[in-house]
Amino acid sequence: MSELTDETLTIIDRWWRAANYLSVGQIYLLDNPLLRTPLSRDDVKPRLLGHWGTTPGLTFLYAHLNRVIKERQQSTLYITGPGHGGPGLVAGAYLDGTYSEIYSDITEDTEGLQKLFKQFSFPGGIPSHVAPETPGSIHEGGELGYALSHAYGAAFDNPDLLIAAVVGDGEAETGPLATSWHSNKFINPATDGTVLPILHLNGYKIANPTVLDRISRDELEALMVGYGHKPHFFEAGYDDEDASSFHRRFAELLDTVLDEIAAIKERAAQGDESRPQWPMIVFRTPKGWTGPATIDGKKTTGSWRAHQVPLASARDTDEHLQDLNAWLQSYRPDELFDENGKVAQDIASLTPKGDLRMSANPHANGGVLMKELRLPPIEDFAVDVPTPGSTISEAPRVLGSYLTEVIRRNPDNFRIFGPDETASNRLQGVYDVTDKQWNAEFFDGDTDEHMARKGRVVEMLSEHQCQGWLEGYLLTGRHGLMTSYEAFIHIVDSMFNQHAKWLKVTNHIPWRQPIPSLNYLLSSHVWRQDHNGFSHQDPGFIDHVVNKKAEVVRVYLPADANTLLSTYEHCLKSRQYVNVVVAGKQPAPNFLSMDEAKAHCERGLGIWEWAGTETPGQDPDVVLAAAGDVPTLEVLAAADILRRELPDLKVRVVNVVDLMRLQDENEHPHGLTDRDFDTIFTRNKPVIFAYHGYPWLIHRLTYRRNGHENIHVRGYKEEGTTTTPFDMVMLNDLDRFHLVIDVIDRVKGLGQKYAGLRQKMEDERIRARAYTREHGQDLPEVRNWVWPDAANQADGEKVDATLDTGGDNE
Amino acid sequence: MSELTDETLTIIDRWWRAANYLSVGQIYLLDNPLLRTPLSRDDVKPRLLGHWGTTPGLTFLYAHLNRVIKERQQSTLYITGPGHGGPGLVAGAYLDGTYSEIYSDITEDTEGLQKLFKQFSFPGGIPSHVAPETPGSIHEGGELGYALSHAYGAAFDNPDLLIAAVVGDGEAETGPLATSWHSNKFINPATDGTVLPILHLNGYKIANPTVLDRISRDELEALMVGYGHKPHFFEAGYDDEDASSFHRRFAELLDTVLDEIAAIKERAAQGDESRPQWPMIVFRTPKGWTGPATIDGKKTTGSWRAHQVPLASARDTDEHLQDLNAWLQSYRPDELFDENGKVAQDIASLTPKGDLRMSANPHANGGVLMKELRLPPIEDFAVDVPTPGSTISEAPRVLGSYLTEVIRRNPDNFRIFGPDETASNRLQGVYDVTDKQWNAEFFDGDTDEHMARKGRVVEMLSEHQCQGWLEGYLLTGRHGLMTSYEAFIHIVDSMFNQHAKWLKVTNHIPWRQPIPSLNYLLSSHVWRQDHNGFSHQDPGFIDHVVNKKAEVVRVYLPADANTLLSTYEHCLKSRQYVNVVVAGKQPAPNFLSMDEAKAHCERGLGIWEWAGTETPGQDPDVVLAAAGDVPTLEVLAAADILRRELPDLKVRVVNVVDLMRLQDENEHPHGLTDRDFDTIFTRNKPVIFAYHGYPWLIHRLTYRRNGHENIHVRGYKEEGTTTTPFDMVMLNDLDRFHLVIDVIDRVKGLGQKYAGLRQKMEDERIRARAYTREHGQDLPEVRNWVWPDAANQADGEKVDATLDTGGDNE
Repeated sequence: MSELTDETLTIIDRWWRAANYLSVGQIYLLDNPLLRTPLSRDDVKPRLLGHWGTTPGLTFLYAHLNRVIKERQQSTLYITGPGHGGPGLVAGAYLDGTYSEIYSDITEDTEGLQKLFKQFSFPGGIPSHVAPETPGSIHEGGELGYALSHAYGAAFDNPDLLIAAVVGDGEAETGPLATSWHSNKFINPATDGTVLPILHLNGYKIANPTVLDRISRDELEALMVGYGHKPHFFEAGYDDEDASSFHRRFAELLDTVLDEIAAIKERAAQGDESRPQWPMIVFRTPKGWTGPATIDGKKTTGSWRAHQVPLASARDTDEHLQDLNAWLQSYRPDELFDENGKVAQDIASLTPKGDLRMSANPHANGGVLMKELRLPPIEDFAVDVPTPGSTISEAPRVLGSYLTEVIRRNPDNFRIFGPDETASNRLQGVYDVTDKQWNAEFFDGDTDEHMARKGRVVEMLSEHQCQGWLEGYLLTGRHGLMTSYEAFIHIVDSMFNQHAKWLKVTNHIPWRQPIPSLNYLLSSHVWRQDHNGFSHQDPGFIDHVVNKKAEVVRVYLPADANTLLSTYEHCLKSRQYVNVVVAGKQPAPNFLSMDEAKAHCERGLGIWEWAGTETPGQDPDVVLAAAGDVPTLEVLAAADILRRELPDLKVRVVNVVDLMRLQDENEHPHGLTDRDFDTIFTRNKPVIFAYHGYPWLIHRLTYRRNGHENIHVRGYKEEGTTTTPFDMVMLNDLDRFHLVIDVIDRVKGLGQKYAGLRQKMEDERIRARAYTREHGQDLPEVRNWVWPDAANQADGEKVDATLDTGGDNE
Repeated sequence: MSELTDETLTIIDRWWRAANYLSVGQIYLLDNPLLRTPLSRDDVKPRLLGHWGTTPGLTFLYAHLNRVIKERQQSTLYITGPGHGGPGLVAGAYLDGTYSEIYSDITEDTEGLQKLFKQFSFPGGIPSHVAPETPGSIHEGGELGYALSHAYGAAFDNPDLLIAAVVGDGEAETGPLATSWHSNKFINPATDGTVLPILHLNGYKIANPTVLDRISRDELEALMVGYGHKPHFFEAGYDDEDASSFHRRFAELLDTVLDEIAAIKERAAQGDESRPQWPMIVFRTPKGWTGPATIDGKKTTGSWRAHQVPLASARDTDEHLQDLNAWLQSYRPDELFDENGKVAQDIASLTPKGDLRMSANPHANGGVLMKELRLPPIEDFAVDVPTPGSTISEAPRVLGSYLTEVIRRNPDNFRIFGPDETASNRLQGVYDVTDKQWNAEFFDGDTDEHMARKGRVVEMLSEHQCQGWLEGYLLTGRHGLMTSYEAFIHIVDSMFNQHAKWLKVTNHIPWRQPIPSLNYLLSSHVWRQDHNGFSHQDPGFIDHVVNKKAEVVRVYLPADANTLLSTYEHCLKSRQYVNVVVAGKQPAPNFLSMDEAKAHCERGLGIWEWAGTETPGQDPDVVLAAAGDVPTLEVLAAADILRRELPDLKVRVVNVVDLMRLQDENEHPHGLTDRDFDTIFTRNKPVIFAYHGYPWLIHRLTYRRNGHENIHVRGYKEEGTTTTPFDMVMLNDLDRFHLVIDVIDRVKGLGQKYAGLRQKMEDERIRARAYTREHGQDLPEVRNWVWPDAANQADGEKVDATLDTGGDNE
């Protein structure tokens, strides 16, 4: 370690001034980037948009991190929770030289500076926040709350990586951030990287003080200790201390902290995997530090008034224009840039080399580091399906065996995240080869099953954490999936939004390499919430997802085990998508052999000829379509009734696994051509569509199709409670009997002729309901129903006997 | 205070045993409720569903709370975060006598017990979790994380109320819960009630230990101190301590804690409003306490194996049946219930009287306590609109004046909650009569504007907190609203789900009185995120909301200030809904006078004759419809172009404020009849519909309407960045020029005839885009455009000059 010379501290300060100058320039200046002529109104942007308040703190940290990175050759990722301080990160990347390397028109001269300034928050330019366009970023400055989750996600399996994660004190009030401090109970100091949280206590949000700045230092210290950290307090900018003095203090503090981290890593290398008290820094500096102290007579620096654009009228009033000029000049740009606009050499010398530059760290462009997953052949895990419906599986359990082998083959770049539900979701097979990673205390006895200091599964009861960790893991180029209850994946609706938007934008940024898809497995779904009832019944995440750009979202509803396997293999191989897979965890019949499942998944949807009664080459009288496992079962049971009761009726059974196939080919890359759609669904026959979720989504996807007016959809209509599986489908008119009624009502000529059968179906519903209410379980003939052609009939009772009574959410 | 006699402790223990017996009975028994005959398999339910693990802890606390409530006559609300321990709360309500009062068939005898047991988690019975059906509950045992937010919401303005809030240690891992501890910085000890958090540290979730049980006691203590609390630790059940001993310890602890609270309240009554170190209890007891120690040789009590139904095969195997029998008998039911099945008198004597029973506390059925809001006439706040478009307002600012008077007239039962955005959303007028309530530190100087120990506005940077507080406030019978950025209201998607489901269920529970609606104001919407860009652009909350039952959701898109006023008056008067109101905060023209606005809101949608060129009594050639403020502006500008360029074209302009009016009357209570729909939209003319959100929602709402195939919708299609307002609408083809192109393309015969105009419109788009990219703002003629008939033309430049440059999210 080199000594902290005055010269080094001077360079740090000069770097900081340059970065601040570049930040203010971005927010305000349209032209005259180096103030080589007197600042005029026309040099100021007509619309002043951006966030100054957090920026000087971020650049201060950037400068100091540069020094230690260079001295220690420490690969470092910089995650800034207050990512609305975008100008500061762009300034850093520009001073690193990275910006000009990537964006060749933003040159390192006066012309480049002018373009750099103009493009910021400007139409056709770059966003005002840290964004995919920002080199070195994996963390969008959009929604607040995920800085630490992302940081820890990046840390998993990157033992040599340091992640400096700035947490804004506004952000710190969000729920996700408040729990994410506990991530340190899941990190292994020997095999994972280090997260250095820096709580940026600048005291104010948009219009209010922050909670953590307005509790006593004792309370704040207790809070950080309670979170498992060793807090180091730093404060500067509130008095007239010399810059060289506070730079020295911070540089020394940073050395202390990095030495502590090095000692922890050293102990870990010696075999001590236990949880250390990781250091963190409370970094208290004035909001808008180095900006105008007061504006229009009101305190600005060190207050919420510095949050966005402090001199809003810089183009409109002379007073603000002069204030702006004084502010810009206070950084003494002439000392920082040469006559051509190139930054002074000593300042540039603070920058680490190549990949060590935070703006060029390859972990921040994870696709470049990504290793392909070594996937085993899914055939090795296929379930045997001699004839449709003849065997029974819990589909996710089968997937679990496959994932077990995936984990075995990919011991360091694949993880499963979940809120305490991996076993509940039937993936517990993976514990044959791995454990749940945990670094809080262990207890003796037999309750700490499958828990260890190292493991591929990470579980904490916070969907936000799981999603944030997974995102951080994927964005740094690794692979993984997340399990959750279908209803409660809504908890991360907004996080999904941000990630999907990130993917959409990166698709159009040439230097961003594709990253692995974000894969969901939703196995505790709306139809089987026997333990939990109405509060746990919500299939709307799919609807939420399809609002995002078609190029980045995929939704799959595999109806049996082999189809789930084939689907998931596809998901694990894919890049740049969010894949939503819904597949129930209860025992259910298998319909397709592995070959059939693969072909079915390839097509995304198809006619199940064996289930229908149609005449080849002719249109059927009616199409029974299903998407989802429970709807598929009900459709097949309805088809069974129809073939017995109405043997002359030509019934086609269609199954949909890739929901996006229903959409127009112009709307979604997976969309079917109209011709193919017509071939399957006919142009004009009634289609009774049994769908897993809210029915109108099917209408949304198909409303431009021929014969859309003939599509009649059954699905979840927000009716439910704690009841039996069949009562649940009856409550929502998705049951086999109601589907038969729908056929009778919709196929021309059947209504009158088969009024008796219709009445019988109504009676069956009444009988089923009454039986359920008396016996507390479904009619035996419903529970035991199996597809009649199944040569080797499954024992229906067995389905009920193995019916899950464990493993629900708290 | 009476002394803690052995007799009292015995009664507490007997009450607890009875409650535990009733809980186990509910989970397992179909019949033979008092084991008066040997337990047989047929007595056991065929489907065993429920959660035992947390239950004995909840009943233990219930018993002890009963004692102190009775002794101190302390009105107490019991909120159980681990609400899946439903059997325990039902047992408590039954022992209180409340259950039989409300549900007269569940009598206090053997027959009633049998029904009580059978109905639990049984088809046609009651849900397995704490639910609206549970007397005394305002907190559904669904999604975890909101116990403290709900508790504090109930505490606001209820100075004499104690809320005992149990936080599960699983729940404690969620983000929302982790930040909700900080609620104590917002509570005023003199004017608000007291929340007593009880962290139920039973150590396990579904399949894992909990984080907070696996950190050192020192860390946990530091964490609670850091959250601002004075923690009291209690532990029992891990050794062979006598019940009388641990009951005495806990009773003494509870007395200590309540004495501390009383002292705090006393100091507050003396005028000390500062933030005290409120006590809280860490309650460490084994999961499944009093249940079977081991099952099948594995540790059960005190482990995650006790989470749900520990003896899953009680009906299937003799071993489990005998274990169940032994378990039930361990409570010695014969000592607890008389020969008729009525609970012993001494046990019943622990129950407080009347409304003091936690299960009968009127705050838990807030509708019974609800006072009507005293609302001023909206006319007093109307903006002057001599002719359409002739004046300009920021609509929420006008609403703010109205709310100011609402607050003045309702000083103790109306609140505004928001994540640091009340001023940003232009409601700052309210600070004329109130402040932001804050009880952390205050700083000298001018930065703590509008902050005080008491105030009607509560702001913390957590949408979860705001929503949870508001829900708790409403559920206890008060009124309020929440502001948020439109994009980030998705953060509470799942909380909205739970609340909407709660409302739906309570609508069908006769003893539940209606509560005030939950009102959202989303003023920072998708079209005006100039500071923030793509990450802040998402109008999908509306789509999420309309998935819930039509009976409980309403969506409004008022297009100007008076319409917003009228809409909000309606929302504040309404009951049992979730009202979503989206109204931009930027300066925008006013179109309707107060009378017109009221009539327009009454109808929910209507023809704006003054904007069209149709001939009365005839169908127009085309309908231009708009929902939302920005779409309305573009539609009017398009209509302006059309009347100039195509004077012979009969254009009808329709504006929609109540989105649900579009739906079929069978789908939604607000739905228009088909006849009325046809009158407005015609049966067969092209309709160009400019919509605020994702376009297909309009298709969803109208797909059963006549002429649906003629409705062409423009809306947000997930294109955006940091850019100008007009560039945003152009990016999404919602702009006036594109709407004119749509008219040319869709009205038969125009295409060929007006190819020139079409080209001109395309050119205008190119010109607008080029201008924006050069100048950083929109074309002057776009910025300055006003409705041509406006007699007193607004100064368009003014619109731009007052364009917001402040007040966005961090």
